[in-house]
Amino acid sequence: MITSTQNPRIKHLLLLGQKSSRRREDGLFIVEGRREVEHCISAGYTLRTVFICDEIAEAPFTLPPGTETIQVSSNVYERIAYRGGTEGIVALVEERHLSLADLTLPEAPLFIVLESVEKPGNLGAVLRSADAAAVDAVIICDPLTDIYNPNLIRSSLGALFTVPCVACTTEECIRFFKANDIQILTAQLQDSRLYYDTPMTRGTAIVMGTESTGLTMPWRNAADAHIRIPMLGRLDSLNVSVSAAILLFEAVRQRQIHTK
Amino acid sequence: MITSTQNPRIKHLLLLGQKSSRRREDGLFIVEGRREVEHCISAGYTLRTVFICDEIAEAPFTLPPGTETIQVSSNVYERIAYRGGTEGIVALVEERHLSLADLTLPEAPLFIVLESVEKPGNLGAVLRSADAAAVDAVIICDPLTDIYNPNLIRSSLGALFTVPCVACTTEECIRFFKANDIQILTAQLQDSRLYYDTPMTRGTAIVMGTESTGLTMPWRNAADAHIRIPMLGRLDSLNVSVSAAILLFEAVRQRQIHTK
Repeated sequence: MITSTQNPRIKHLLLLGQKSSRRREDGLFIVEGRREVEHCISAGYTLRTVFICDEIAEAPFTLPPGTETIQVSSNVYERIAYRGGTEGIVALVEERHLSLADLTLPEAPLFIVLESVEKPGNLGAVLRSADAAAVDAVIICDPLTDIYNPNLIRSSLGALFTVPCVACTTEECIRFFKANDIQILTAQLQDSRLYYDTPMTRGTAIVMGTESTGLTMPWRNAADAHIRIPMLGRLDSLNVSVSAAILLFEAVRQRQIHTK
Repeated sequence: MITSTQNPRIKHLLLLGQKSSRRREDGLFIVEGRREVEHCISAGYTLRTVFICDEIAEAPFTLPPGTETIQVSSNVYERIAYRGGTEGIVALVEERHLSLADLTLPEAPLFIVLESVEKPGNLGAVLRSADAAAVDAVIICDPLTDIYNPNLIRSSLGALFTVPCVACTTEECIRFFKANDIQILTAQLQDSRLYYDTPMTRGTAIVMGTESTGLTMPWRNAADAHIRIPMLGRLDSLNVSVSAAILLFEAVRQRQIHTK
């Protein structure tokens, strides 16, 4: 059992939680919490090491055979637990990088694309809605955050492991959609139509920019249609994860009505 | 100019930011940021005192005649600014408590009701979507948070001042809806229909419980229909502010289609 926060394995774990450069270098990231670790295992990720605190965990964990398991004391656990330490499990997991070519496309796929999301928490929230809407992939173009950021994993409640998530450039992504006959709907005000007047039953990618600067020109130019959510109040913007959910569930609605 | 963080007026301001009991006692709350203060003034709130830091503010502020204005140094401003101090304005404002009887009802009003929201940030996010959907009021039943919580105001981006917000008991609220022929749609799984199969063009209240425990029995029993958002993925819940936005914008869609 590790009882000191100065233990080199604990120090390494803390470093991976803090530094995206270190995560990239080592190809490792951290998952905390029972359900999150379960989703991670179901998604076929390789668990390098699991740190367990029996004093805190309410029930034993079922881990893949051969997983290295290390007991830690509660003081060490509280140091490594990102969100307050109520679950007793933190896993060190091998990163996996999906590319567009790895995706298996059904007949009329649905994508959500985010260009340069600044806040990991927002991206996590989008992933959670993307899971609920059963999108075929979340695509991050020119990311300013790495997808294995602990804040992102936490706010996604494990959706990072249930939804395929691809990071690529805007150019690669546009080429992919054009090649696969997927319509590009960009969320923007200029020359836009109302989102619910826009058919989304064919292969569709909903593309969103940042709250501050919106989408770049390559996306605006590649769009099959520009769509907007009507802003009926006095403020002029919605949170990006809220907008994404409204647009994705309009696609869900149209597709379910369509197949009735 | 106040240059010391130990100044009694500054200490009072900090206390109001931290303690809801103190806010309630004094009937005062804090608003930070240029746009937020502007929305607050437009909504007719009375500004008791405005603390301005000219070193930080990028442009002068237009305040109602007679508003007490106090200059503070940048070190004091950084102490009182809740979100990092880039705007140079913090206002001390008199609380105002709307009741159901204060609401003016249009022909087919739209309400969102939240029962016991735990997180002020979630409530702020709901207010932002409620502004965009132009709801007639956000109603908080049996609140665990006061509506003048600084986190709530911040995450609402000022929507607290653009959307009527009422706090009342569940019993008062149900009586009000029944008396005004407003249908009650509760977001819950049990005996539910899909939200987009549910007409929302007449007077409608969408009622949501907490993410953890859902709605209480009085709401379930008072409902005209139970509605659910289909969960097509592997996780089993959406963030409350995301769910609220999806449901509110379905009402917006139906009402706009209906009037075409």
